[in-house]
Amino acid sequence: MKRIVIKFGGTSVGSIEKIVNAAKIVQKRQEEGNEVMVVVSAMSGTTNDLVNKSKKISKNFNKPELDVLMSSGEQVSCSLLAGAIIELGLKARSWMGWQIPILTEGDHASSRILEVKTNEVINFLSEGGIPVIAGFQGITEENRISTIGRGGSDTSALMIAKFFKTDSCEIYTDVEGIYTTDPFINSKAKKIEKISYEEMLEMSSLGAKVMQPSAVQTAMKNNIPVHVRSTFSKLTGTFIVSEDKTDSKKVVTGITYSKNDAKVTLLNVKDKPGVAADIFEPLGKSNINVDMVVQNISSDEKETDITFTVKREDLSKTLKIIENNRVNVDYKKLIHDDKLSKVSIIGAGMIVHPGVTYKMFRALANERINILVISTSEIKISVLIDENVTQKAVKVLHKTFELD
Amino acid sequence: MKRIVIKFGGTSVGSIEKIVNAAKIVQKRQEEGNEVMVVVSAMSGTTNDLVNKSKKISKNFNKPELDVLMSSGEQVSCSLLAGAIIELGLKARSWMGWQIPILTEGDHASSRILEVKTNEVINFLSEGGIPVIAGFQGITEENRISTIGRGGSDTSALMIAKFFKTDSCEIYTDVEGIYTTDPFINSKAKKIEKISYEEMLEMSSLGAKVMQPSAVQTAMKNNIPVHVRSTFSKLTGTFIVSEDKTDSKKVVTGITYSKNDAKVTLLNVKDKPGVAADIFEPLGKSNINVDMVVQNISSDEKETDITFTVKREDLSKTLKIIENNRVNVDYKKLIHDDKLSKVSIIGAGMIVHPGVTYKMFRALANERINILVISTSEIKISVLIDENVTQKAVKVLHKTFELD
Repeated sequence: MKRIVIKFGGTSVGSIEKIVNAAKIVQKRQEEGNEVMVVVSAMSGTTNDLVNKSKKISKNFNKPELDVLMSSGEQVSCSLLAGAIIELGLKARSWMGWQIPILTEGDHASSRILEVKTNEVINFLSEGGIPVIAGFQGITEENRISTIGRGGSDTSALMIAKFFKTDSCEIYTDVEGIYTTDPFINSKAKKIEKISYEEMLEMSSLGAKVMQPSAVQTAMKNNIPVHVRSTFSKLTGTFIVSEDKTDSKKVVTGITYSKNDAKVTLLNVKDKPGVAADIFEPLGKSNINVDMVVQNISSDEKETDITFTVKREDLSKTLKIIENNRVNVDYKKLIHDDKLSKVSIIGAGMIVHPGVTYKMFRALANERINILVISTSEIKISVLIDENVTQKAVKVLHKTFELD
Repeated sequence: MKRIVIKFGGTSVGSIEKIVNAAKIVQKRQEEGNEVMVVVSAMSGTTNDLVNKSKKISKNFNKPELDVLMSSGEQVSCSLLAGAIIELGLKARSWMGWQIPILTEGDHASSRILEVKTNEVINFLSEGGIPVIAGFQGITEENRISTIGRGGSDTSALMIAKFFKTDSCEIYTDVEGIYTTDPFINSKAKKIEKISYEEMLEMSSLGAKVMQPSAVQTAMKNNIPVHVRSTFSKLTGTFIVSEDKTDSKKVVTGITYSKNDAKVTLLNVKDKPGVAADIFEPLGKSNINVDMVVQNISSDEKETDITFTVKREDLSKTLKIIENNRVNVDYKKLIHDDKLSKVSIIGAGMIVHPGVTYKMFRALANERINILVISTSEIKISVLIDENVTQKAVKVLHKTFELD
């Protein structure tokens, strides 16, 4: 008998009908001979509604109380789903984060799961019971409710898979699986059958919103096979597995894009040792994440231009910090642009197939798409381009790398 | 410094504006030199909404899961109110039932509070903090969430007052206090300044819905002064106190009515010893509460008529049980009526003022109101009358006993 974790996202439990449907999926997976554990998100819309309520009281609503507030969403979906499973004649019960308990560390609203206690739930499993566990929440050392950041129910599911040593984790969501690219901007997007953890990690970090990167990381670290599939279809979805289990015929597995970036350029900076550190240190201290960085040697060899990207929401804060820091790092001009998008190609096959970079740049050049910044890792290449040509870029790359 | 419990009902926290208003009341009571503890109900409408969700899944939704579901309502109002108090610059934090913990016994959905632990909250109070405690909920011995029945937040507040030995308990609600009768059916109703626990217990048991009887009982047993007042007005409300602290000039303190009763009569029952027990035993075993009972000797002395009242919702079940029990208790005819109302006069002064009964019956007779059943206690007289003349009866009694 295999022990599996089934996780339902917010859209999969977004109404009473959907909750009853989810209960039937649980029943089916148990009838197929599995020992089933369930993790559930809040009904879709609930968390936003709760956050909006808190914002009407304060834009800086007390974080620990925000956690108490938000975690009520999973309490509702969790008890309703447990009740719906019991209604099917099965043995089930709900567990909140504090009941298991799921112990967390770190700040409220962005905690990390340290440990999941297993005794009580394992007893329940051994009696044929189906535990229904609230995702997204845990408790701190001080016995206060904590949450692990938006979308964190995926991470809850994987941490439960880890501590309960399950054979796999199934993520039920409102799409059929992971696609080679966003089907909304390219109708030729195809469902990927198998993808490696590493590729999925890049995919989810770079704009494919099906799974949270931290959840993929947990799966990868603990080598837990993940099956991302639709709650509303019986088709198999996408399996996320270790690299040796993927068919690595294709060089590129998927293409993502995101429109969250802003580019900042400091023109004619004095090029002396430590200048980059002088620029980025105050940004880091203000929790601003710098993503891509390029340094050009300008014609005058004593000066250089430095370009980097930050999240769009951090742009104005970033500009202010750099202006305030001009006594330390002087520049001739500070320019910025946030009408940009980052398009990335991802594939573990790149490592053994040289020439991918060249092929990518040539394809974009043929479409007269101008590349502003480039950043690469072993299994991905990202380029920053004009926002208006995002779709065009995704389509040509999808075709170039034989994903159509 | 006085330690007080302030309890906000659902309508007092029914919107964000009202929650902010409640926070200001808390601030004011603290500024006036009190050590303040807060107990809060779910935002009005929430509990019904959650129960309706569960009913869509099952008419017999699993009770322990229903408790998990319903208790999420107080989690929302509690965290929002704590956040709103913090926003005013005060120190506050929320406590769920399991965090205190509030230990309960008895069945899910109708548990009783056994004990309220105080250590952690007392530390917080001693640091000038304002604890905001979720009403209505606790935990069982098995560490599962329990609730103490609808309207149970009043009882939570009084149990907290008891265990924290507070000087008083303030119940904030949407009315100005306790009235001599329902202002909706008699515009001459007046707010009562002081009422004894015993009177209030009869009032709330007999139809005045401002406070739950079990909460009044807790206040009485522990001699905790209660102040029922409006969240939306600065006027003082009604003080519920021990009898020696009331001004007992008036014989009758209040007049209540309820339309929840149904009358059942068994005509020509064989009058033998134990017949009443034979009738009521099967009803009791089916959890049907029999309220008023009258036994008339019929003309033939070997037979009697037995009349009693039950809750309207129990009528059809009651009739079925009596019919099934006919082998034990035979009768000539079984008649019933549920278009009735029970009107009661309540007053501790009755004990020392004979003639109240006569005065009541005369007043009703003058209005040609027919009394069907009578029941009395030391401090109340209830009569069952035709539903259509409820308002007329309340008005004439209100005038007769000088409450206008």
